[in-house]
Amino acid sequence: MDAKEYLIKTSKELDGPIKQYIEDEEPANLIEATRQYPYAGGKRMRPAMALAAAGAVGGDRSKAIPLAVAIEYIHNFTLVHDDFMDGDEQRRGMTTIHVAYDVPTAILAGDALFAKAFQIIAELDVPDKNMRGVLRYVTKAVWDLARGQEMDINNEKKIVSEETYIETIRLKTSVLFAAAAAGGALVGGADERTVRALHEYAMALGLGFQIFDDYLGIAGDPSKTGKSVGNDIRKGKCTVMVTHAVRSIKDPRVLDEFKSILGNVDATEEQVARARSIMEDAGSIAYGRQLAKKKVDEAISKLDVLAPSEDKDFMIALAKYAINREA
Amino acid sequence: MDAKEYLIKTSKELDGPIKQYIEDEEPANLIEATRQYPYAGGKRMRPAMALAAAGAVGGDRSKAIPLAVAIEYIHNFTLVHDDFMDGDEQRRGMTTIHVAYDVPTAILAGDALFAKAFQIIAELDVPDKNMRGVLRYVTKAVWDLARGQEMDINNEKKIVSEETYIETIRLKTSVLFAAAAAGGALVGGADERTVRALHEYAMALGLGFQIFDDYLGIAGDPSKTGKSVGNDIRKGKCTVMVTHAVRSIKDPRVLDEFKSILGNVDATEEQVARARSIMEDAGSIAYGRQLAKKKVDEAISKLDVLAPSEDKDFMIALAKYAINREA
Repeated sequence: MDAKEYLIKTSKELDGPIKQYIEDEEPANLIEATRQYPYAGGKRMRPAMALAAAGAVGGDRSKAIPLAVAIEYIHNFTLVHDDFMDGDEQRRGMTTIHVAYDVPTAILAGDALFAKAFQIIAELDVPDKNMRGVLRYVTKAVWDLARGQEMDINNEKKIVSEETYIETIRLKTSVLFAAAAAGGALVGGADERTVRALHEYAMALGLGFQIFDDYLGIAGDPSKTGKSVGNDIRKGKCTVMVTHAVRSIKDPRVLDEFKSILGNVDATEEQVARARSIMEDAGSIAYGRQLAKKKVDEAISKLDVLAPSEDKDFMIALAKYAINREA
Repeated sequence: MDAKEYLIKTSKELDGPIKQYIEDEEPANLIEATRQYPYAGGKRMRPAMALAAAGAVGGDRSKAIPLAVAIEYIHNFTLVHDDFMDGDEQRRGMTTIHVAYDVPTAILAGDALFAKAFQIIAELDVPDKNMRGVLRYVTKAVWDLARGQEMDINNEKKIVSEETYIETIRLKTSVLFAAAAAGGALVGGADERTVRALHEYAMALGLGFQIFDDYLGIAGDPSKTGKSVGNDIRKGKCTVMVTHAVRSIKDPRVLDEFKSILGNVDATEEQVARARSIMEDAGSIAYGRQLAKKKVDEAISKLDVLAPSEDKDFMIALAKYAINREA
């Protein structure tokens, strides 16, 4: 099973459905703005998770298609709002909504996508009881996403504890993956224990993904990741590697030197290389990779509740891919 | 039945419940920001509508309290976002969220309130089928609210048709009232026909309310409304009175004069008085009052499906109050 191939296949599968829910209505500029991100494609990992979960529990995968669309709309709603908050002007090769239209339209397009996602969930073709279960997971996830984004903003340029950093990425990244997996399992008719196991799988996987992303930001090949090694260091991003370094460096002069480079937007290439080598010497980069692997192993172990299937294979392959990629 | 007294009573009734759903969590600044508007009180007309509807259909009014809270959170979410978009710095005697905190916190506080409202709806103590019905009405309302706010922004300083103006205020004001009424009726266990009747009642009432608000802006006593008569004229607000005037004024010179004053932020008191008198002569101010009354009469007629009750009396009294007030 090749996780990337499965993702490409499901992304294509969703091309049609993703365009079925936003009808032509007034005002045309708002409707256009809501369509931009979902119609643009992308990896669509979260909706793929919903489809795979429904299939992996032995359910009718096609019944999870509306849920998959709703999950993608929610992801897109957070992207539209985050891009404005973060001042990003490009996304998926296109101008972001608050730049292409204006700020109010970006806020409203996000709100509207959010509302549409829950309109779709209200119409899920599953017993009312299961729909209520899906609603519980997804609404909790959206509440947590807002908390995660605020924590991320609050923590900017601060050295927080590893625990705080992991909680932030759990809220920012994992919760929607987890809601997609649990929701898909509920649509597939899974029992509570299985739903919870898939929720835990995706939660741990999300952490592994993000921690490995941070690892690639420092240890990856910039020509493949598209990110220079200095990016996260100059931004002072407080990854698990940074928190590990701060608590492991014994020499106070080295620690001071490390802290003086971290978050210095004007740091030279030489200084960036020095910070990287301090982390290397402290074992922090290896620590990051190992922690990502630990989370992924934990994720895979949760899948023991599932009978063998192609969808289960994808869920395992996706977890392995999370820590075996170059970009 | 005094509608204002009923509103004061239900607003007090909601003081406790409205503070039960947002727990202490991280990050503290976001949690504080989400609490500011709902905790601040206000008329709480929309939640009162949900409670009254549940009671008026013969249901257990107390079961609608969580729905009432959810409806108020949704209203508050739109206020937080709208205040930012409109650049308003004060609300209910307090500094608005984007000023008191910052813009990202305002966007996220709105998003979080939105999510919390649907978390509450997911837990409604009613049969799953009724919960799904509530969800349908409320999600549709939130989608429409976003459309209404965008239309309002698009129409700024334009003379649009009466039809467009009424559609805008329907989306901006009526749909959440209507969802509150329909949702309350569903929580109260009403049949489909009754739910629809209450939805139509609140939709028409919302229009009557807004049209009479516009009427008060021109014909009311500024010492009571707190709004100068020039407000809407200088802003060029396209009310039903304005659209009536534009289509009724026969003399092209008078029409030109009227249009030159409308939307002129620097219009003198004399010019404002002239515009007002042009509208008076064209019968436009009386037309506004009559149209508000027509909507309210239409609203009240929908309540024929209900047996007599105190809650029904409130719904009638509220409709009458909408067009018999000085502020």
